[in-house]
Amino acid sequence: MRNLRMLLEYDGAAYHGWQRQANGLSIQQVLEEKIAVMTGEAVKVIGSGRTDAGVHALGQVAHFKTTSTIPDINFLKGINSLLPRDIVVKTLQEASPTFHARYDVKSKVYLYQIVNGPVRPVINRPYAWFVPAVLNLEQIREAALFFKGTHDFSSFCSTHSDAPNYIRTIMDIRIEAGFDGLIRITMEADGFLRHMVRGIVGTLVEVGRGNRCLSDVQGTMNAKDRRYGGMTAPPQGLFLKEVKY
Amino acid sequence: MRNLRMLLEYDGAAYHGWQRQANGLSIQQVLEEKIAVMTGEAVKVIGSGRTDAGVHALGQVAHFKTTSTIPDINFLKGINSLLPRDIVVKTLQEASPTFHARYDVKSKVYLYQIVNGPVRPVINRPYAWFVPAVLNLEQIREAALFFKGTHDFSSFCSTHSDAPNYIRTIMDIRIEAGFDGLIRITMEADGFLRHMVRGIVGTLVEVGRGNRCLSDVQGTMNAKDRRYGGMTAPPQGLFLKEVKY
Repeated sequence: MRNLRMLLEYDGAAYHGWQRQANGLSIQQVLEEKIAVMTGEAVKVIGSGRTDAGVHALGQVAHFKTTSTIPDINFLKGINSLLPRDIVVKTLQEASPTFHARYDVKSKVYLYQIVNGPVRPVINRPYAWFVPAVLNLEQIREAALFFKGTHDFSSFCSTHSDAPNYIRTIMDIRIEAGFDGLIRITMEADGFLRHMVRGIVGTLVEVGRGNRCLSDVQGTMNAKDRRYGGMTAPPQGLFLKEVKY
Repeated sequence: MRNLRMLLEYDGAAYHGWQRQANGLSIQQVLEEKIAVMTGEAVKVIGSGRTDAGVHALGQVAHFKTTSTIPDINFLKGINSLLPRDIVVKTLQEASPTFHARYDVKSKVYLYQIVNGPVRPVINRPYAWFVPAVLNLEQIREAALFFKGTHDFSSFCSTHSDAPNYIRTIMDIRIEAGFDGLIRITMEADGFLRHMVRGIVGTLVEVGRGNRCLSDVQGTMNAKDRRYGGMTAPPQGLFLKEVKY
């Protein structure tokens, strides 16, 4: 059996997230169906983790086992010719037989895009959260520092989670301001809980609007209770940017 | 009469270009219709220049005359609530009575986006030209220098033009390589002929692919004949970025 590793880019707008489910089309299902067309096998594609409905990926990683002898480069071209235009396999190659896209993850990098300004964006519309209220970037940058390090993130993630604990380590969090009101928040952690990036971003935006003061962020963290955290930012601004092994 | 000046962003994919025409919907027509709804007047919106079908704008400038007394800020909010989501007015304010969006232009800045790599892009798909062939960026940068300065651009623009002459001055041309194969070509000129950016980009890509040598670019320029220039790059990668007055 070959163990094939894929690097994926997708626009999540049309999908019910990564994970296969009964009530809607998922990225995983589309990939499994196209691989079945190529190999004649019912394969299971294992991703580095789930992305939620409407969330995009620039660098999702997944693997699957197959007895197919189609050479890597032909497999890559073949599957891309079958996939819809909102999913693409960027690279595909044989990995070691023990490589596992989920268990072997060292860290993940997520990007969240906000468009901040008085008028709604056109070009960035499908890929950003439009926040018309004036945001204080310096306050957001200061607040972001509270999240760096090892913490219990219960106040900022979904309570609908099967995670054994809510302690994660954010190694890096960066706020960049670009052209035309575009704000990019990038964070790297050893793992992310469900809705964790969106809960942190929602809280940062409340700080930036002046609806939540800096000292409150530490208190919210200590509360370990989702009811104290900020709103969950919408999915279309979120990208799984990179998975590190 | 007030003379109102607008800064516009639009996604050109769904339009037959800027200029009003009989056989398809244009940006100009949509703006004129929405302004008519607000003012009850048949206004003529004058842009800094045309953009072709499928070409986008991050910073198109236009003006129109009106007797309406609606305050600027209310006019801005009102028109944005009427416009479709692929057109937005970013700013609107009263200009001097003599301001003219076309006649007063000092220079324009265009951006062209290419995605270069073995696989088709997903996220940048609507806003870039996908070039799978390997491109030599150094050769493209060297070739770009030939275009800088004052030249007759007959070899690189549409022959279907009512321009009195084909001499223009490119003050700046920059090539930036970004994340995931994205190449951004930015150029500023005192004026652009029809299809000129796309003709220059098409020629640069031929140089980058090795289908055209550096010395050939100067010869093509001297020929002053469109048949010698490179292909016209497709419209979806092109953005009118800024108009300077």
